[in-house]
Amino acid sequence: MDNGLLVVISGPSGAGKGTICKRLREETNNLNISVSATTRKPRDGETEGESYFFTDEEEFKKKINNSEFLEYANVYGNYYGTPKKEVFRQLEEGNDVILEIDIQGALQVKKNYPEGVFIFILPPSLKELRNRIEERGTDSKEVILRRMKCAYDELNYVFKYDYVILNDEVEAAVKKIQCIITAEKNRVIRKREIINKVKEV
Amino acid sequence: MDNGLLVVISGPSGAGKGTICKRLREETNNLNISVSATTRKPRDGETEGESYFFTDEEEFKKKINNSEFLEYANVYGNYYGTPKKEVFRQLEEGNDVILEIDIQGALQVKKNYPEGVFIFILPPSLKELRNRIEERGTDSKEVILRRMKCAYDELNYVFKYDYVILNDEVEAAVKKIQCIITAEKNRVIRKREIINKVKEV
Repeated sequence: MDNGLLVVISGPSGAGKGTICKRLREETNNLNISVSATTRKPRDGETEGESYFFTDEEEFKKKINNSEFLEYANVYGNYYGTPKKEVFRQLEEGNDVILEIDIQGALQVKKNYPEGVFIFILPPSLKELRNRIEERGTDSKEVILRRMKCAYDELNYVFKYDYVILNDEVEAAVKKIQCIITAEKNRVIRKREIINKVKEV
Repeated sequence: MDNGLLVVISGPSGAGKGTICKRLREETNNLNISVSATTRKPRDGETEGESYFFTDEEEFKKKINNSEFLEYANVYGNYYGTPKKEVFRQLEEGNDVILEIDIQGALQVKKNYPEGVFIFILPPSLKELRNRIEERGTDSKEVILRRMKCAYDELNYVFKYDYVILNDEVEAAVKKIQCIITAEKNRVIRKREIINKVKEV
């Protein structure tokens, strides 16, 4: 059986990664999300192994040292990471795994698992990105300007990715990503087994 | 505007390339075939510039020397070739071009235009390939054996291609190729223009 695909959906904050991933999971068979590990305390209703794998800082750092994460980050004092073991088990069972992740995380994943499929979600324009961030209404003018500068710089990382999807219409973006998954499953580099099977006379 | 894609559909004789290309053209917008040049004499009903570009051997050889072909071959004393000029004009106008071609031809195209998308059509099995060739009823047992040996050897060239499609069901194969075309159009390497446009603030 062929391995599953690791599909990394990434891009600047505000590009619409979350909405796309949600629709993609709803509309695609056999597409799993990975459960992250975190040192953050569980919130009400969160369950171990489903929402997150909860762990303490000592344990988390030991796993960092053992290269047990595809990627990790420290956000406001809490660690978050994607455990290799969990993801690789799913891929080996032939299931596709989707990771929705920021650009720094995606670059770490690429280093640890270059066989992944790396998709950069573009906002329709930086103007539109600004509108989206402003509409959230949670950020001050100064923060918005800093985020816009950051998004502008982040666009340069698109050239580290395999594919770029312009998110001007969510359903169209989802269909394109489904096509990318189908296409990637038919890449010669992923198909050695089938080629050997055809050769049987 | 983005350039069109050159889609090369190739594989062993009897794999079903012809049927797949016919269905693909019927079901895909904006997918053009290229018109070949040949030194063969026109048959009844064939028209210049539509069936073929008819030319004489001297002219054809001059074009070979000027590297004017994406690929060419001599089949039973007649030359056949794919003119670069014609194909490149279509691609520059943003139209996709499909080439249905044998393996030797596809390898020539890859040398001359590596930006193309190279798809290898696999028969479901060599057993099935043998059935198809036998069902045609046009070949002697000796010829069939020689063709089977040839097909077996040709399978090794699959690793020079980007994608491999198992032709066990024509409509499914066509859908996969349509997905490959969509995916390839969203490759970062083909999208520099859109990325620059998003950056306009």
